[in-house]
Amino acid sequence: MRTVLCDTLGTELPIAGFTPSEHVAAALSRAGGLGVLGCVRFNDAEELDKVLGWMDANTDGKPYGVDIVMPAKVPAEGKQVDLDKLIPEEHKAFVERTLAELGVPELPEGTEERAGVLGWLHSVARSHVEVALEHRIALIANALGSPPPDVIGQAHEHGVPVAALAGTAEHAARHVAGGVDIVVAQGYEAGGHTGEIASMVLLPEVVDAVGDRVPVLAAGGIGSGRQVAAALALGAAGAWTGSVWLATREYLETMPESEAMQQALLAATSADTVRTRIYTGKPARLLKTRWTEAWARPDAPEPLPMPLQNLLVSGAHNRIHAAADPSVVSMPAGQVIGGLHEVRAVADVVAELRTGFDAAVGRLSTIRDTTG
Amino acid sequence: MRTVLCDTLGTELPIAGFTPSEHVAAALSRAGGLGVLGCVRFNDAEELDKVLGWMDANTDGKPYGVDIVMPAKVPAEGKQVDLDKLIPEEHKAFVERTLAELGVPELPEGTEERAGVLGWLHSVARSHVEVALEHRIALIANALGSPPPDVIGQAHEHGVPVAALAGTAEHAARHVAGGVDIVVAQGYEAGGHTGEIASMVLLPEVVDAVGDRVPVLAAGGIGSGRQVAAALALGAAGAWTGSVWLATREYLETMPESEAMQQALLAATSADTVRTRIYTGKPARLLKTRWTEAWARPDAPEPLPMPLQNLLVSGAHNRIHAAADPSVVSMPAGQVIGGLHEVRAVADVVAELRTGFDAAVGRLSTIRDTTG
Repeated sequence: MRTVLCDTLGTELPIAGFTPSEHVAAALSRAGGLGVLGCVRFNDAEELDKVLGWMDANTDGKPYGVDIVMPAKVPAEGKQVDLDKLIPEEHKAFVERTLAELGVPELPEGTEERAGVLGWLHSVARSHVEVALEHRIALIANALGSPPPDVIGQAHEHGVPVAALAGTAEHAARHVAGGVDIVVAQGYEAGGHTGEIASMVLLPEVVDAVGDRVPVLAAGGIGSGRQVAAALALGAAGAWTGSVWLATREYLETMPESEAMQQALLAATSADTVRTRIYTGKPARLLKTRWTEAWARPDAPEPLPMPLQNLLVSGAHNRIHAAADPSVVSMPAGQVIGGLHEVRAVADVVAELRTGFDAAVGRLSTIRDTTG
Repeated sequence: MRTVLCDTLGTELPIAGFTPSEHVAAALSRAGGLGVLGCVRFNDAEELDKVLGWMDANTDGKPYGVDIVMPAKVPAEGKQVDLDKLIPEEHKAFVERTLAELGVPELPEGTEERAGVLGWLHSVARSHVEVALEHRIALIANALGSPPPDVIGQAHEHGVPVAALAGTAEHAARHVAGGVDIVVAQGYEAGGHTGEIASMVLLPEVVDAVGDRVPVLAAGGIGSGRQVAAALALGAAGAWTGSVWLATREYLETMPESEAMQQALLAATSADTVRTRIYTGKPARLLKTRWTEAWARPDAPEPLPMPLQNLLVSGAHNRIHAAADPSVVSMPAGQVIGGLHEVRAVADVVAELRTGFDAAVGRLSTIRDTTG
């Protein structure tokens, strides 16, 4: 299973996997794909530096990438304490009231409260890029479209290709015109930030718009080998995966407290996700739980714009995480979670992507070669 | 390109196409697919009888099917005059006001106003089945899931297989348990009545749930050969197409006044559809126009339940149709319309489905057989 993407990334397989877990990312790279570590959880660039050092040492010399969150236009910027002032009291009260209703306890006395996630801030994302370029990364992906031109230039000076997510063919063309090297076409069914056009329609459109200039990765709905085959049939040069890695053993090595999330994920069907602005302020697909349902009620306030919404809910996320109640998880996840039925090792997932792809292509060849 | 579906339907190609146009349906059947004529437009069973007679004479002995709209549970029933009483004045006033705002004129004096579409009514759909079974049809498809058991029995007595649309794996399993012979898995991106799970995720789930018992047809997002290849890669035994046939020359042979609709369709991108209850009372994807936008405004009333909503808007549909303004079309259409750039002959569309499929499978085989 080899495409032009393998040349661009230096990988054996045309499969990239986004994950906030360095253990998952490293295991995926070792298995022949490209593990892409999500940087948004690192408020402190030194912490990211340390983890990327660990990646360097644990990927058998195989390539890996990083994912940052950087809007092309600089949004509200500032220290958390200043931004906090922009959050209406009504919103804070709703969050407090909702957590109480859902039975999510306060953090235990003496717990050091983790700061809100600041990775959404431009300055923090820039520090991620600086640090990442000191490591042997094979890709910088931006979850919010094209990064600013100087960041693309900086990556190119280090010989590192830049990938940008696109939800329409128009966005994709704009990214490529701006110097982006790989387009990730993100379909409606995808977890996290996503648009309204489904992969079956979006992929051929993006490929027709830019596929002769840069490789197009298919994102959204891909967790098995037959889905990889479908994405490549539609013209993609590879697959961008995400949710499938949440249900792996390696994920727990990084975040052992995520068992409740995994339980919720395995129990969910493909109908149990919701596209909502409550996580970051921009539409993102999340696992549907009592937490997302509370925000869908008529008495819930409108979510705030990025980056305020995530600052608003970050304390709640800490409490929800500590509560470890599968019914109140807050987690980006795609519709593909309906196909996850057990916690697997990363290598086993990759093995299925290979064999499932081969089986699908074999089936298609037979269909093509059979005539009435 | 041959699958088990070809045996079930007696076709050369595993491709069915839903269309309200007998000219399109006949041309598709002649080209090797299965033309499936939508019956909902026929209030009068005798009119359907006449058109099916025309189909018998114009399909070169090739198989064709019919599509009815019949909920398994009998909904509100009655003559149009009784049902009209159930429609609130507020709704009627909104429709009148909106048409005036959009510049849609009254029908010319003396125009015989077509009755509201009654095909949604159980009794009318039953009369469609009765009439269709007197013709040499190869399929009865029901756009609203399983038809009632006695209707399935009636079809089987005539040796005619029954297909039912499903938006979840659970629905699909229920259809098969109830005796349905073919499941049409209808993804979020599809035109007309549709659920929220996209084809990339829905198809493998439905195939895993029922694919060892009945053929699964992929519906939603399919208008080109590479999309057929993707659907079959996901495990479908064939493709169910719809929107792609709206932009054909043969469509105008049946409905010459549909040029405005075709213009609107060709100008639309994949972002120019909307999933709404305004057409029938159940969520259906329509072309986004000034008409659908008016219903999305805060002052618009909530759509009525089926079958009242369609009765409410049927007069408006007549006026909109006569006005022939591309910006005020009311037409079910899927996201795949973004890929339609010209009006083609049905045979040319079918030719591309074949060559595009072969090219995609060829590309996949090369990817499979290339290693680093």
